[in-house]
Amino acid sequence: MDLGKMSHVDLDRINIKGFPEIIYGLHKTPLQILEVALKLDAANQPVMITKLSFDKWKELEDKPPNGSYFESSQIWYNRPFPTMKNGKILVLSAGTSDSQVVEEAAVVSQWMGCQTDVLQDVGVAGLGRLLGQLETIREASVIIVVAGMEGALPSVVSGLVSVPVIAVPTSVGYGANLDGLTTLLAMTTSCSSGISVVNIDNGFGAAYQASLIIKLMNQD
Amino acid sequence: MDLGKMSHVDLDRINIKGFPEIIYGLHKTPLQILEVALKLDAANQPVMITKLSFDKWKELEDKPPNGSYFESSQIWYNRPFPTMKNGKILVLSAGTSDSQVVEEAAVVSQWMGCQTDVLQDVGVAGLGRLLGQLETIREASVIIVVAGMEGALPSVVSGLVSVPVIAVPTSVGYGANLDGLTTLLAMTTSCSSGISVVNIDNGFGAAYQASLIIKLMNQD
Amino acid sequence: MDLGKMSHVDLDRINIKGFPEIIYGLHKTPLQILEVALKLDAANQPVMITKLSFDKWKELEDKPPNGSYFESSQIWYNRPFPTMKNGKILVLSAGTSDSQVVEEAAVVSQWMGCQTDVLQDVGVAGLGRLLGQLETIREASVIIVVAGMEGALPSVVSGLVSVPVIAVPTSVGYGANLDGLTTLLAMTTSCSSGISVVNIDNGFGAAYQASLIIKLMNQD
Amino acid sequence: MDLGKMSHVDLDRINIKGFPEIIYGLHKTPLQILEVALKLDAANQPVMITKLSFDKWKELEDKPPNGSYFESSQIWYNRPFPTMKNGKILVLSAGTSDSQVVEEAAVVSQWMGCQTDVLQDVGVAGLGRLLGQLETIREASVIIVVAGMEGALPSVVSGLVSVPVIAVPTSVGYGANLDGLTTLLAMTTSCSSGISVVNIDNGFGAAYQASLIIKLMNQD
Amino acid sequence: MDLGKMSHVDLDRINIKGFPEIIYGLHKTPLQILEVALKLDAANQPVMITKLSFDKWKELEDKPPNGSYFESSQIWYNRPFPTMKNGKILVLSAGTSDSQVVEEAAVVSQWMGCQTDVLQDVGVAGLGRLLGQLETIREASVIIVVAGMEGALPSVVSGLVSVPVIAVPTSVGYGANLDGLTTLLAMTTSCSSGISVVNIDNGFGAAYQASLIIKLMNQD
Amino acid sequence: MDLGKMSHVDLDRINIKGFPEIIYGLHKTPLQILEVALKLDAANQPVMITKLSFDKWKELEDKPPNGSYFESSQIWYNRPFPTMKNGKILVLSAGTSDSQVVEEAAVVSQWMGCQTDVLQDVGVAGLGRLLGQLETIREASVIIVVAGMEGALPSVVSGLVSVPVIAVPTSVGYGANLDGLTTLLAMTTSCSSGISVVNIDNGFGAAYQASLIIKLMNQD
Amino acid sequence: MDLGKMSHVDLDRINIKGFPEIIYGLHKTPLQILEVALKLDAANQPVMITKLSFDKWKELEDKPPNGSYFESSQIWYNRPFPTMKNGKILVLSAGTSDSQVVEEAAVVSQWMGCQTDVLQDVGVAGLGRLLGQLETIREASVIIVVAGMEGALPSVVSGLVSVPVIAVPTSVGYGANLDGLTTLLAMTTSCSSGISVVNIDNGFGAAYQASLIIKLMNQD
Amino acid sequence: MDLGKMSHVDLDRINIKGFPEIIYGLHKTPLQILEVALKLDAANQPVMITKLSFDKWKELEDKPPNGSYFESSQIWYNRPFPTMKNGKILVLSAGTSDSQVVEEAAVVSQWMGCQTDVLQDVGVAGLGRLLGQLETIREASVIIVVAGMEGALPSVVSGLVSVPVIAVPTSVGYGANLDGLTTLLAMTTSCSSGISVVNIDNGFGAAYQASLIIKLMNQD
Repeated sequence: MDLGKMSHVDLDRINIKGFPEIIYGLHKTPLQILEVALKLDAANQPVMITKLSFDKWKELEDKPPNGSYFESSQIWYNRPFPTMKNGKILVLSAGTSDSQVVEEAAVVSQWMGCQTDVLQDVGVAGLGRLLGQLETIREASVIIVVAGMEGALPSVVSGLVSVPVIAVPTSVGYGANLDGLTTLLAMTTSCSSGISVVNIDNGFGAAYQASLIIKLMNQD
Repeated sequence: MDLGKMSHVDLDRINIKGFPEIIYGLHKTPLQILEVALKLDAANQPVMITKLSFDKWKELEDKPPNGSYFESSQIWYNRPFPTMKNGKILVLSAGTSDSQVVEEAAVVSQWMGCQTDVLQDVGVAGLGRLLGQLETIREASVIIVVAGMEGALPSVVSGLVSVPVIAVPTSVGYGANLDGLTTLLAMTTSCSSGISVVNIDNGFGAAYQASLIIKLMNQD
Repeated sequence: MDLGKMSHVDLDRINIKGFPEIIYGLHKTPLQILEVALKLDAANQPVMITKLSFDKWKELEDKPPNGSYFESSQIWYNRPFPTMKNGKILVLSAGTSDSQVVEEAAVVSQWMGCQTDVLQDVGVAGLGRLLGQLETIREASVIIVVAGMEGALPSVVSGLVSVPVIAVPTSVGYGANLDGLTTLLAMTTSCSSGISVVNIDNGFGAAYQASLIIKLMNQD
Repeated sequence: MDLGKMSHVDLDRINIKGFPEIIYGLHKTPLQILEVALKLDAANQPVMITKLSFDKWKELEDKPPNGSYFESSQIWYNRPFPTMKNGKILVLSAGTSDSQVVEEAAVVSQWMGCQTDVLQDVGVAGLGRLLGQLETIREASVIIVVAGMEGALPSVVSGLVSVPVIAVPTSVGYGANLDGLTTLLAMTTSCSSGISVVNIDNGFGAAYQASLIIKLMNQD
Repeated sequence: MDLGKMSHVDLDRINIKGFPEIIYGLHKTPLQILEVALKLDAANQPVMITKLSFDKWKELEDKPPNGSYFESSQIWYNRPFPTMKNGKILVLSAGTSDSQVVEEAAVVSQWMGCQTDVLQDVGVAGLGRLLGQLETIREASVIIVVAGMEGALPSVVSGLVSVPVIAVPTSVGYGANLDGLTTLLAMTTSCSSGISVVNIDNGFGAAYQASLIIKLMNQD
Repeated sequence: MDLGKMSHVDLDRINIKGFPEIIYGLHKTPLQILEVALKLDAANQPVMITKLSFDKWKELEDKPPNGSYFESSQIWYNRPFPTMKNGKILVLSAGTSDSQVVEEAAVVSQWMGCQTDVLQDVGVAGLGRLLGQLETIREASVIIVVAGMEGALPSVVSGLVSVPVIAVPTSVGYGANLDGLTTLLAMTTSCSSGISVVNIDNGFGAAYQASLIIKLMNQD
Repeated sequence: MDLGKMSHVDLDRINIKGFPEIIYGLHKTPLQILEVALKLDAANQPVMITKLSFDKWKELEDKPPNGSYFESSQIWYNRPFPTMKNGKILVLSAGTSDSQVVEEAAVVSQWMGCQTDVLQDVGVAGLGRLLGQLETIREASVIIVVAGMEGALPSVVSGLVSVPVIAVPTSVGYGANLDGLTTLLAMTTSCSSGISVVNIDNGFGAAYQASLIIKLMNQD
Repeated sequence: MDLGKMSHVDLDRINIKGFPEIIYGLHKTPLQILEVALKLDAANQPVMITKLSFDKWKELEDKPPNGSYFESSQIWYNRPFPTMKNGKILVLSAGTSDSQVVEEAAVVSQWMGCQTDVLQDVGVAGLGRLLGQLETIREASVIIVVAGMEGALPSVVSGLVSVPVIAVPTSVGYGANLDGLTTLLAMTTSCSSGISVVNIDNGFGAAYQASLIIKLMNQD
């Protein structure tokens, strides 16, 4: 049975958005991923694959164009974009358990050409840790706040700075956390101004939007 | 049609719990409320009615035993319990919009014989307000934290004190707040230790629990 | 009964965030609103009140400091911030039914000093309307996309531009729309990159976030 | 213990609906599936089994009547219906990750005697892919649109054509996608006219409905 | 403040879909409705308004182009489309309480040029009523089944016919019905083949799709 | 427009089930109710109308066949069934607030010919009230337990008796009660054996089921 | 650490309810199960274990008192109760996929001393199968209806008989079925009278209540 | 890539709260856990790790500071706090299946220096077990009630005592239990006064809160 072409790689996206199509690996087979990666590469575009499990990577390791795999953040990429001069992204997290999403955000930010700092495990249960880093925090142009459980951290951080906060709910927690849905809804209904939210565990999405903001700061 | 006795007032409760049956007014008709109140009064027990709307109270105003009505917290009571010597309850809220629930908690705490302080509108969007009151906050033996929206305040407060925090989610908010359900779930999945939670807008329940704790401090 | 000071107006917020505390009017009584407004005004800070119903405004009309009321967007303000030179916000909506939220976003953006365009009723059911405005759309630095029902518009718009899209789900719809919750969740799980989301009907929140981005473009 | 006959194969269905009972394999044991298949075959009716996992098929491979197994779409069938002259079904999808459901829809459509085209990976994040295929799209009599995540594609497609669109939400996505529930609800509350919806990942159901429509076009 | 043009009436839709933009009245003000209606009329296109409450209609009664208002189904229209020769729609309901949605479906079907029958109150609690009408039921080319509560009727009807069934869940019921959400989900997960589903109470949507099917039967 | 006969009264139901069609008044207009009532009466069948609001009854008061209206339980009926000799139903409730549902259950039980006792306000918060009535409770053949909030009463009652318990969740409560949904789910997942559940506030449904059980005890 | 006695076997239950404590095996370790079983056996009471997985049974196979294990229904028991003379339970199911729950209900009914018939795979998608068995169906005193997906069968069956129907929702289905939650809610909001509902997949609970009804028919 | 320090151990927490940071092991890798444990130990603070699976413990067994591992409650600790003189915690559960959470609560209570009793398997299905232990129950100063399924036990216990009850919902149950969410919501909406609630399966959180209450009783 002929099922049509399986993939229509969007080679035009790099012209429209400034960045190429990025391959979402979670629900694709290694073969499907490889097909898209090769088409992008053949068109001379940089390649990034997100949510690429270790097992899938192992199947692809010897095949795609050369690049680097980050096991914890499950990202593969090659040919990062040149670093932009203005602005800096800070990726900040509530707890050590959030580190996988933190790394996803940081890796994507850097690949997209943004200066990127990371500050982990400064959640609200012990406020001193956060308040002791105020200077670092206030240096950033955009802050990605990664938190699970009740997701209180973005509200607190946003009350301390004058720049946009992008909140990433994580699925860290159990029971009433509802796999991060509670965190997502809580962040969305924050009492603090200057926050917008992306999907649960979506470090990639937060980094992408933060990078678009940094890009605005680098227009001449 | 004979529908049996409508109410079985629990005259024994004061012996078991130390406090009489308290009348939940929300779903009762004025007549039902009056019947219970009179039976309690006839048994020489103090009477408290919660969630008593202004309209219902107007119908009852001239009828029940003498007492006071608090319009904002929708409580009626008579014969408060004597004030206990040890311990103090602090009722603390995130925003002015939560004041109705704050008042419910404070009125009940005082009626049950507890020394009670109130500190309103110190939510996490402007952390300075809270941190500027640390001394007052650390004087309390039990802290009732009332908050709506994302419900971040109990996590922050609990990280600053060494006493039990009872969190009261409120239905203040809209959209993703889901009439307080998000707040309730978020508070229940807090990253901070030393917190337990009561129902949405249930200032009464928090005060009752807090008062039982104060009572433990006054046993000889 | 003394319930402590009801409100702790956050007079320091303007120093930290660059904008004063903004009064959330939905769950406050007119008296509570007035108290906060007067304190802000006495401190010589601009005042903005959101979700201020016509009825509440009528009670306050003669009392607060001078200012303007926008009935459709339920906003009152005085003393807007000076317009910034760089960058422009576009508020774009799917349908005429979303116009109240559109107006909220536009009024807040302008008050915060941003150049602001509006483009309404260009939803995906008739794609020609949107594609016919591509030039206008690509002039913006930040795009606020307001949509109800299935909330498809931000995904489509974000695929056409290279700037950040802030999505505002609205409660326009019925049945499976779940008062906008479906819209919110759908926007959060968009297949398109460069989108973040705010609460249902929260035009204010989107404008605030967009304005912080514009401000970054106006740093020297 | 005698538990009655386990299955009552509906041999009359082919007379009423024009198609035989189709075996839903997901919750049945291989033995249960075999029993039904043999009864249908003995009655000289064509056999189709859906949601038949590879492992179950392996147990049955040598046993049922002769036929073909499609591993990706998890379908087994024999004796397809003759192809009808009028009308054509187009199965169209948002992304490569949806291909399993696409194949299910296409295989069933063809088995039921419909001319069937497939067009994959033309989601709204890069609208050019879809608009570049308008001619193909407008040739179809019924369009099955398969999409996960926010499920925006059926709304857009339906706005471009004058024929019925049957939307199939998929469980492709994570977090706020809620295993496809968000997609289902979003598609159901679409702003575009001419759409109806089937269950999550139910490519079979969409194809069945589309085929009944094609059949109407082939009545004389 | 200039908010851009409020509405972009989609005058091109009639060319693409064969039917004009239809005005969704639920969330629009009378003024917004009037503006769109006049633009459509000026372009010489037929006008239909759905979910137009009696009160809104009263405000518009003397103003829009001439037409008819149906109070129970809350529809206003003028200039119906000519009746098509082939095919017939049957609108069938479970109970008398569903009659408002039934009427919406029937009025829209007729306006779109379809021969339309109605059969009400034949729900599954008394199966004899349905089975007694089998002949009528089997005359239809498309069946719109309207039902609330547990929504069992489409499954039963679809098992009795060989044509497409479009299921309309209604909000008739209480408690576990969840305002029709249970009905919607139940219909979507039906055990019967040949069913697709539209939004809760969306008689319009079902009629629109059914009419597109009838139109396919009238192509030459 | 001719919409077919609006109602198909099920005159055969009394032969099949032993009881006539009972009119569900909640979503019907007074006119619709009257039409069904008159048809039943003309066929010489007893008439019962449930969920008939006071306002609707007022419109019908002078029109239907003679009968009695019960305002609290919102039931109208005439010609009750003769009382059966064996068995007795006990309707038992947790609190005074549940009395409306209690009365609905009791009125229906008696109309259907069952000996019926009522015992109200014996909820688990004061267990003594329940344990003090054990003798009465153990006289019943079927027990209908009506409770709101956490719905604990059926579990406790069922542990004390050897007869079937039919649990009726009520919408009494607020916040986490979710309008009775929590109560319904909690009763359904009871740790106690011998319980089945009906819809929220469905005193009618519980009484109908209990009466069918009593009828089994009166077969010869 | 001494954690108190782990289990308090309820040896008194057989006196109160007529049946012993039945061991719920799902969340217990084999050791916990064994401990309870031995205590019941030592007290000379029959033993039944439900939701006992094959693996757990394997660990216990040689240890508990003698008895029989039913692998499909995951039940172990010994010493069934003597069969009662009057009344008969019919366990009826929608599809072959429901057979595990059917068997659970049938095994428990028989163990509790009830005459029990089984009729499987007569769901509403092909009504002929059900209507062809009307005579068998009308012989039963209580009918347990087991169904997954949209759960329409109890409504239809209850409309055909004059005895109590106990509905058991199953988790058979996918997507919008929500693991049986949709089925449960749909059954609870049935339009048909004479139905009550138990938990998802709870064949045991249905059989227990049905047996209590049969017992009432066997009182002197 | 340098991702900043992964963990910011909160060494100040012991001064603020009287207890050190406790390590939440569920979402951390063994390496992350070890890093935090060593830092706490180096600072001469006691170490407790919760939700530490057997497999993770095996990886750490030879590495962290000396201490004890409790397999059933998945806790590791060293250096418990000295036992306080006043007050006693009772951990009480509904069923044997809840024993893992019971043990978590008991181990934490003892480590924090509280006298602790345990009473298991006294759920409401057989009330005699609970009522037979009233004396033991009334000796406690704080009662932690652990229950799954419908979660009725806290309501009953709280009605029998005059001290605070902390309710712990567990995920024991299936179907409508929704993995403990129903239990959580039911406990939160209890009809009984003096109850507050913690997260599902959160024996640790209940014990922490109870211990803070005991500490209040030991202030001089």
